[in-house]
Amino acid sequence: MAGKEDLTLLGLVVSPFVVRVRIALGMKGVSYEYVEEDLFSKSELLLASNPVHKKVPVLIHNGKPVCESLVIVQYVDELFAGPSILPTDPYERATARFWAAFVDDKLVPAWIGILKAKTEDERAEKATETLAAIDQVEAALAELSDGKAFFGGDSIGYLDVVLGSCLFWFEALRRMHGVGIIDSGRTPLLGAWAERFGESAEAKGVVPGADEAVQYAHKLAAAIAAAK
Amino acid sequence: MAGKEDLTLLGLVVSPFVVRVRIALGMKGVSYEYVEEDLFSKSELLLASNPVHKKVPVLIHNGKPVCESLVIVQYVDELFAGPSILPTDPYERATARFWAAFVDDKLVPAWIGILKAKTEDERAEKATETLAAIDQVEAALAELSDGKAFFGGDSIGYLDVVLGSCLFWFEALRRMHGVGIIDSGRTPLLGAWAERFGESAEAKGVVPGADEAVQYAHKLAAAIAAAK
Repeated sequence: MAGKEDLTLLGLVVSPFVVRVRIALGMKGVSYEYVEEDLFSKSELLLASNPVHKKVPVLIHNGKPVCESLVIVQYVDELFAGPSILPTDPYERATARFWAAFVDDKLVPAWIGILKAKTEDERAEKATETLAAIDQVEAALAELSDGKAFFGGDSIGYLDVVLGSCLFWFEALRRMHGVGIIDSGRTPLLGAWAERFGESAEAKGVVPGADEAVQYAHKLAAAIAAAK
Repeated sequence: MAGKEDLTLLGLVVSPFVVRVRIALGMKGVSYEYVEEDLFSKSELLLASNPVHKKVPVLIHNGKPVCESLVIVQYVDELFAGPSILPTDPYERATARFWAAFVDDKLVPAWIGILKAKTEDERAEKATETLAAIDQVEAALAELSDGKAFFGGDSIGYLDVVLGSCLFWFEALRRMHGVGIIDSGRTPLLGAWAERFGESAEAKGVVPGADEAVQYAHKLAAAIAAAK
């Protein structure tokens, strides 16, 4: 798509959902204004742009908001020239969408549950659920990558972006709670994939470090404690 | 797409998710073998085709399974000629995907919650949640349809298929529990839309009656009681 585009991304540096959109925009080589939101005091622009969920990311394109990370990534992929993020083959595209939905419906609620758990029992239960989900993703990687570097083949694609955006939180959970979600022993393929992803040009500059996630988790916990 | 296609749909007549796929296949005018599953005794083919979720619908295309209704509907739309199910404009497509996700993430769990509630209090809570979600969809219809007959404009599109597939269950919930999810007083636009949807050629023959849903709900309740 040629022409001048007015793009603003409402985000949060430590949100994996925002990271997805930043990787997608980076892959397409489009420039945008990035606005960091304070989720403890949401901006009027955020509330007006995403009145249904009141969440980041929101991509505002020529004044019109697009919400929900998977929707935004597909929008960016369809709109802008550059490398295709979703596979171009319809069956491979369906498979990538299936696993992206699995990540968001099964894996993400489980690992966020580790973070939010109020008791050690609950934390252990969510950890078990997370490992069961990631083991299914390990099996999917074996099947889908067919020995290639990424889910999408030789280069980063949709599912790499969707899962790769969570990796710095996995490392934060290891440091905070000793849960090894991706583990070179238990999930060797994902272990090697995660290293490749972290070193990729696509991840550089937009994926924060695990220390930032740990700090944010402590900030959240303090806010929750203060609200009691 | 020309050529001979081998299509088998593993389904359940009263599943709204299966109804979506049948409407999509009907819109494209493609023929397929329909296989009714017994969810109390799942077939080997279902378990082998959808090992992750073990759920219908599964569309088996030339021997390769596609799972998850929203993924299947998009696959069918991309693969076959005929009327476009998703909007062709990228922004409208993003909006349709956003609301389809809203239906599946917020509305569907709420109305299924009415059905599964173990106490009257829980049922009332899920009913309140369902009405709050449907009121947001009413507002979306006002904005998206712009006075036209359907979410998709003058003809049935993605979001019509996604939401329309739930309508016979809404009627079943009204009969069983007195919950008026779509109500000509509270949600006049959805009320008129639901009538148009029910009378459409797309819905005819694949959307079952509410009595079938009521019967299935009783069968489920009896099975759950027997398992206690």
